[in-house]
Amino acid sequence: MNTPLQHYEALVEKGQDIYTLKSISTLIGWDQETYMPKNAIGIRSLQKQHLESLIHKEMTSTYLQELLSPLIRLDNGELLKVDGLDLMQQGAVKEWRKDVVKAKKLPDLFVEAFAKAASETVSVWAEAKQANDFDSFLPYLEKMVELVREKTDYLGYKDHPYDALLEEYEPGMTVEKLDKLFDSLKPFLINLTKKCKNLSIQTDFLYGDYNEHKILELDHYLLQSMGFKEGCYRLDASNHPFCVSCHPTDVRMTTVTKTRDLLAANIFTVLHEGGHGLYEQGLDPSFFGTPICEFLSMGIHESQSKIWEAFIGQSLPFWTYFYPKLQESFPQNFSNVLLTSFYQAINVVEPSFIRIYADEVTYSLHVILRYEIEKSLIDGSLQVKDIPHVWNEKMQAYLGITPKNHREGCLQDIHWAWGLFGYFPTYVLGNLYAAQLFDSLKKDHPDFKEKVSQGHLTFIRDWLNEHIHRYGRLYSPDTLIQRATGTPLSEESFKAYLTKKYIDKKD
Amino acid sequence: MNTPLQHYEALVEKGQDIYTLKSISTLIGWDQETYMPKNAIGIRSLQKQHLESLIHKEMTSTYLQELLSPLIRLDNGELLKVDGLDLMQQGAVKEWRKDVVKAKKLPDLFVEAFAKAASETVSVWAEAKQANDFDSFLPYLEKMVELVREKTDYLGYKDHPYDALLEEYEPGMTVEKLDKLFDSLKPFLINLTKKCKNLSIQTDFLYGDYNEHKILELDHYLLQSMGFKEGCYRLDASNHPFCVSCHPTDVRMTTVTKTRDLLAANIFTVLHEGGHGLYEQGLDPSFFGTPICEFLSMGIHESQSKIWEAFIGQSLPFWTYFYPKLQESFPQNFSNVLLTSFYQAINVVEPSFIRIYADEVTYSLHVILRYEIEKSLIDGSLQVKDIPHVWNEKMQAYLGITPKNHREGCLQDIHWAWGLFGYFPTYVLGNLYAAQLFDSLKKDHPDFKEKVSQGHLTFIRDWLNEHIHRYGRLYSPDTLIQRATGTPLSEESFKAYLTKKYIDKKD
Repeated sequence: MNTPLQHYEALVEKGQDIYTLKSISTLIGWDQETYMPKNAIGIRSLQKQHLESLIHKEMTSTYLQELLSPLIRLDNGELLKVDGLDLMQQGAVKEWRKDVVKAKKLPDLFVEAFAKAASETVSVWAEAKQANDFDSFLPYLEKMVELVREKTDYLGYKDHPYDALLEEYEPGMTVEKLDKLFDSLKPFLINLTKKCKNLSIQTDFLYGDYNEHKILELDHYLLQSMGFKEGCYRLDASNHPFCVSCHPTDVRMTTVTKTRDLLAANIFTVLHEGGHGLYEQGLDPSFFGTPICEFLSMGIHESQSKIWEAFIGQSLPFWTYFYPKLQESFPQNFSNVLLTSFYQAINVVEPSFIRIYADEVTYSLHVILRYEIEKSLIDGSLQVKDIPHVWNEKMQAYLGITPKNHREGCLQDIHWAWGLFGYFPTYVLGNLYAAQLFDSLKKDHPDFKEKVSQGHLTFIRDWLNEHIHRYGRLYSPDTLIQRATGTPLSEESFKAYLTKKYIDKKD
Repeated sequence: MNTPLQHYEALVEKGQDIYTLKSISTLIGWDQETYMPKNAIGIRSLQKQHLESLIHKEMTSTYLQELLSPLIRLDNGELLKVDGLDLMQQGAVKEWRKDVVKAKKLPDLFVEAFAKAASETVSVWAEAKQANDFDSFLPYLEKMVELVREKTDYLGYKDHPYDALLEEYEPGMTVEKLDKLFDSLKPFLINLTKKCKNLSIQTDFLYGDYNEHKILELDHYLLQSMGFKEGCYRLDASNHPFCVSCHPTDVRMTTVTKTRDLLAANIFTVLHEGGHGLYEQGLDPSFFGTPICEFLSMGIHESQSKIWEAFIGQSLPFWTYFYPKLQESFPQNFSNVLLTSFYQAINVVEPSFIRIYADEVTYSLHVILRYEIEKSLIDGSLQVKDIPHVWNEKMQAYLGITPKNHREGCLQDIHWAWGLFGYFPTYVLGNLYAAQLFDSLKKDHPDFKEKVSQGHLTFIRDWLNEHIHRYGRLYSPDTLIQRATGTPLSEESFKAYLTKKYIDKKD
């Protein structure tokens, strides 16, 4: 008769096999986006498929269920004999059970069909975007939406089918909760956008010829200032910046280094991916092989990137210290520009068509627009063919502008082609979480401004690690935020932050 | 009742899984030597171990044997029903059976013990070399030699236990054959070394400050000239140059780019690894998932690197075309040096202690020395503790020099620490094969010198592809060389090549 701890340890052993396979899959994915010779895409697909199928086989194996069953009821998640297991270990068991139950929900044939359709749709989307041709994309997107609706049936939901999708990326989130948040946020942001729009601010000095080598030097300096552990991460160049992690000791970020738009394309990207990277680096490696050494949700992940990119990286205290460094690296661009002008330029509010380049105020409106469209596609109240029309209407209503074409309109994002529905809202949730965390961080560090103005940032990493990173998937996002900030998720902190920064002009 | 072709296709399907896993293992090994953050070594070891154990499980599975058994007798390798299978497919079946039989020869516990001992011994060796301390290495090396002797028992052999080791790296090679080749080669090389030694040739201009970026530009130019397929390979910087291949579309080479010794450390390395790379790129991808899309032996692999590095890359016709390019890239180093002086300098014969930097004439003597020591260690006629003494004696006898210390003596190579016994001889075999292939290549292309002098090299790639690369493991090394050159393996071509180049001074 084994003790609960022995059962747990057997589970960890198998779990390490599975997470090791996942980490390999992550690594070869990173290679594909950075160094892979382009004609190797065929063998790379075989490699990816084979690893994913091995992982799926492990996750749905009866062996894994047998390992779990002495510790937790598979049907309802009730913990059984767990004496001797601490809270983290119990949390690991609960999350494992969720993953196992989830892995069995989608039939293999459906997963294959979905992956195949997504891959086709992405390539059609790329051409359609290029050609500004929504009609050629339409039948493929209709098929994807059909598949996503089918997926919600497999996954199951209580109230709204879209809840099943939200649960994938933000456990516990529902349409009901989101509608409440966005109903308050949307009019506030529309109103704020109108008030802040100021086209007279000069921004042209941000663009220039920047030496790639110098850019990378500055990037590494920033990452070191943020408190990255040496020998545990990389930063490489890629067309589309991203951050992946094989393990807390192997975090890999990329950024754009060939650019005329240093701040938007590179610096803020490095701070953004750096925020993601610190989260991954801050997970507890002693729990590798369990869900505890895994990030909690896309919204929480995004909060970590946003707090660094915007709340800190676009603040005056931050640039009080770092602007002289930037001037030193690129004197031809910045030596004649005052810090105040620079700070104004990087915080210009201006409605624009492309979400990924949007400012702090308008960004969430882009996302709310997509959320509203997604929700109605999934509940059937909107037809795919009506997307362009609805998109343009909403753009006009929320941002006061109308796209000239579909390329800068409803064809701009890759998410829908991939079948990623339910993902967009996490971009706003990231802002809301970040604003709450930012408040608590400053409360715990009354000398926050002084420290940051002197270039000290590692206390921020430490605070985020203590309150967020190290817990991995132990708590739900709701509970984690409640514990870290003392209040449940709400849009109020974010509204207050934006008002203070953009109306009261205080930092 | 399935047809032989259906049996074969089922085998290929399973084979693709296995070779896909191997290709992933290769890729993460490459990453480890190039871009991996150094603290990720722990998770990387887990990844490696897990992949290797999956591969081993597949290779020893009863399923694979069941797939093979309708096509070939597992006990004696006799082909059964293979009507409808072409020669390549039949060859694949034969080699698969060999691999399966071999995978089952070594007990799992032994493989684990061997890997563990090797890993320990390598780290002890690194310290011992650093400290010039053979005694601390001695007990570990004794253990490794014991394990290797045990391995020969598992693998089996007819005449000499060392034959079992040779078979691992050079199928069909035996002590009897090697002794015959080396008995003829050794006195010839000792004699030639004495005749060629010429310390008055100026070589100092080869050393200098070389711009890394320019070096890499030249390297890529060379690889393109050799005929590498675009989008199917990479060249990166690493401390120890190597070439690995995940697939003919994903060949990855490395070279040294921070160096004062451009030719030895970089250019010849690129040609060497390039030769390996062209072999891998030239394998038939339609056979991926079978042993036919795999290199034949270490000796044949080495012949491909040697023919490019030395037979072509250190020849006058080659530099007739490429020397002006080198001068253009590095005018400060070479603009005042005549081609003839340059050619002399890169072909200086001078006995030295370190094998990897040895010239064409003395190189094989380094290897023969190791072979003789290995053979006697394995048959028990030499004790490990006597290695330093024997090493120094042989160095004096063959090269006329005695190492000042063990670091430049018997501690210089990592191979023995890894338990790689039986591997060294393939370095000489590579030279012998290369010399024979070089003769035939020139016979088939009477205008060889003109073409190469004009910078045309792709006909060489094509010839090697036609006679070597595309066959993969279809033939034995003996048969392949006999077919490609019309004569069986012999040391005569190599002797004639060296005599012509170093005594007759003809190219």
